Amino acid sequence: MNTENLVQPQSGSTDPLDRFYAVIPAGGVGTRLWPLSRAAAPKFLHDLTGSGSTLIRATYDRLEPLSGTKVLLVTGDAHREAVCRQLPEVADENLVLETEPKDSGAAIGLAAAILYTRNPDTIMGSFAADQVISPDEKFQAAVHEAIYTAASGKIVTIGIKPTHASTGFGYIRTGSPLVVAGAPSAHTVEEFVEKPSEEIAEQYLASGDYNWNAGMFVAPVGLMLHHLQANEPALYDGIMEIARAWDTPDRIAVKNRVWPTLPKIAIDYAVAEPAADAGDVAVIPADFSWDDVGDFAAIARLSSAKEDKNVKVIGEGGRVFTDDSSGIVVTDTTRVIALIGIQDVVVVDTPDALLVTTRAHSQLVKNAVAGLKAQGRTDVL
Amino acid sequence: MNTENLVQPQSGSTDPLDRFYAVIPAGGVGTRLWPLSRAAAPKFLHDLTGSGSTLIRATYDRLEPLSGTKVLLVTGDAHREAVCRQLPEVADENLVLETEPKDSGAAIGLAAAILYTRNPDTIMGSFAADQVISPDEKFQAAVHEAIYTAASGKIVTIGIKPTHASTGFGYIRTGSPLVVAGAPSAHTVEEFVEKPSEEIAEQYLASGDYNWNAGMFVAPVGLMLHHLQANEPALYDGIMEIARAWDTPDRIAVKNRVWPTLPKIAIDYAVAEPAADAGDVAVIPADFSWDDVGDFAAIARLSSAKEDKNVKVIGEGGRVFTDDSSGIVVTDTTRVIALIGIQDVVVVDTPDALLVTTRAHSQLVKNAVAGLKAQGRTDVL
Repeated sequence: MNTENLVQPQSGSTDPLDRFYAVIPAGGVGTRLWPLSRAAAPKFLHDLTGSGSTLIRATYDRLEPLSGTKVLLVTGDAHREAVCRQLPEVADENLVLETEPKDSGAAIGLAAAILYTRNPDTIMGSFAADQVISPDEKFQAAVHEAIYTAASGKIVTIGIKPTHASTGFGYIRTGSPLVVAGAPSAHTVEEFVEKPSEEIAEQYLASGDYNWNAGMFVAPVGLMLHHLQANEPALYDGIMEIARAWDTPDRIAVKNRVWPTLPKIAIDYAVAEPAADAGDVAVIPADFSWDDVGDFAAIARLSSAKEDKNVKVIGEGGRVFTDDSSGIVVTDTTRVIALIGIQDVVVVDTPDALLVTTRAHSQLVKNAVAGLKAQGRTDVL
Repeated sequence: MNTENLVQPQSGSTDPLDRFYAVIPAGGVGTRLWPLSRAAAPKFLHDLTGSGSTLIRATYDRLEPLSGTKVLLVTGDAHREAVCRQLPEVADENLVLETEPKDSGAAIGLAAAILYTRNPDTIMGSFAADQVISPDEKFQAAVHEAIYTAASGKIVTIGIKPTHASTGFGYIRTGSPLVVAGAPSAHTVEEFVEKPSEEIAEQYLASGDYNWNAGMFVAPVGLMLHHLQANEPALYDGIMEIARAWDTPDRIAVKNRVWPTLPKIAIDYAVAEPAADAGDVAVIPADFSWDDVGDFAAIARLSSAKEDKNVKVIGEGGRVFTDDSSGIVVTDTTRVIALIGIQDVVVVDTPDALLVTTRAHSQLVKNAVAGLKAQGRTDVL
């Protein structure tokens, strides 16, 4: 391994905040949110909670007080137009368009490499485009601490204080406090652990030592690349080749040639876990509310839409008639929808596809997507 | 009361079958079948059972072996075009178009009056356009007997052998056998009774003396008019005025002037019940299967559509994906519909309105119609 070429910035050479650059990876179709979310209109392009903003716009706005317009976006080539409409502030050179999905290692790694090539002093923060967070102030305070902790030479993750024994998230085991100026909450990370069983999740919750891993990373770009180079040299070589061509006329040609050759690996395996083993990872425990809006039950829970009796309506509420019913209606058509005597129902009404399920079966919606794929109905996926 | 002007035909002057004329009243929106059935496209214009025929076409075809083209149709002015498309055989002079709904007394009474004016010897048979009957042969055999019984000077109803203690139908209490050539099943009628309570319905079923009143009447037109004149003289005067002008150039003008003035009354009260009290009504008990397709539970029961696992699909079955679900999907759109983990559901999918309910709540669909009416959404009713 040869890491000498990576410039490690001098700590304290600049205010850490001035070194911050936000990265927003916007990927993931959200198959459990079909038919609302689909290949052509993924989850992050929707206003799933009735807030008035799409998830990606809300993500940008939440970061803006910290990053200003220093935001780099990584998304699928197909979403270019929709993303530019949502985020007109993002300049062309800060928009990385994937010609095919390559998992988070390549997406976040390339972002790190581009930012490193421009300025090796940069501290990047990566925040997925499809999460619901509130209040923004608590999030910003946590990221603020994470930036200061990153400036001390750490890859910093934000650990969400668990509100229940979820078996759907990975966990971070928190270690001892770190002494970092500007980051009173910083702790070492003992380990990252995979999605647990219900029994184990209960133990995690009871112990108080575990936080949810929301997949947020704040880190000096050089340190990210150091671990990437050590663990995934082929991926490292590929993203560095693209990065060196990025701010030149060869950007598109090199990206289109190299991107398809990159290995597929999650950033957790490529960087976070090996870095934790090396003692290079810190965590800022935070207690803002956080949700990855994984299914329609989550939408029902998170939505600020007012309820028509016991039915939550996302869309044009005035068109829904309910009688002795409960559940959620998500609609992007102009149809009248009547629910009569049906409980805990989930109705998702789109122009070319309709889903009817229950809250309890929300997780199984991905089966419908798999089934329709098997039937060759990719036109509605 | 003056009934002398009504010519009573001489029994046996012609073969009763040659005197037969079918009348099909096609009315009733079927609000419990919303949003499939609605003001602009009522129940009788749909193929609710997947038979390949609309209910009105099936009604015509079922009568045709007895009546030939001697069929008179009474329907709403708004349905003229749709009805003519379904029944191109029906001549203009046999199509009575109601400018506003006036209940069955006016509709069937006017049919009787028109047929009487043309030929006082006529035996009419009135059969609603929105019922599902099988097998046709048993129905035809019962009507055949009813025609012979009518020729003996009776108003003849067809009593359906009850298969369960329905509280949704009226009943006919059967009396003693009648001796009528060509009608071995003919009986007197003791009385018509209204929809009973469940307890009473159980008693009716157990006694064997009661049959369902399917609202079918076969009768000499003169006898129908005799009772109408005796019980509803204003209605009688009105329909006779229209009838006298019917086969003249004044048909439309007189109908449009007089029809709105006719009293609203059901034929049961205007004719059948008083005629029964006078001993003028007979019944042919019959055991063909009969259903008025009152709600979506009935459609699920009657439909010949094949089931996709436990879901019956009326419409294009190939577009419905089901996983661990049961119930019925009625669709007249081209949308993909996915049901996931939902039981006994009723989904009715139309271009501008969607209904989601359960089989058990099928009867309450009329509440949605009432609710939408209250909200001013008559565009989808």
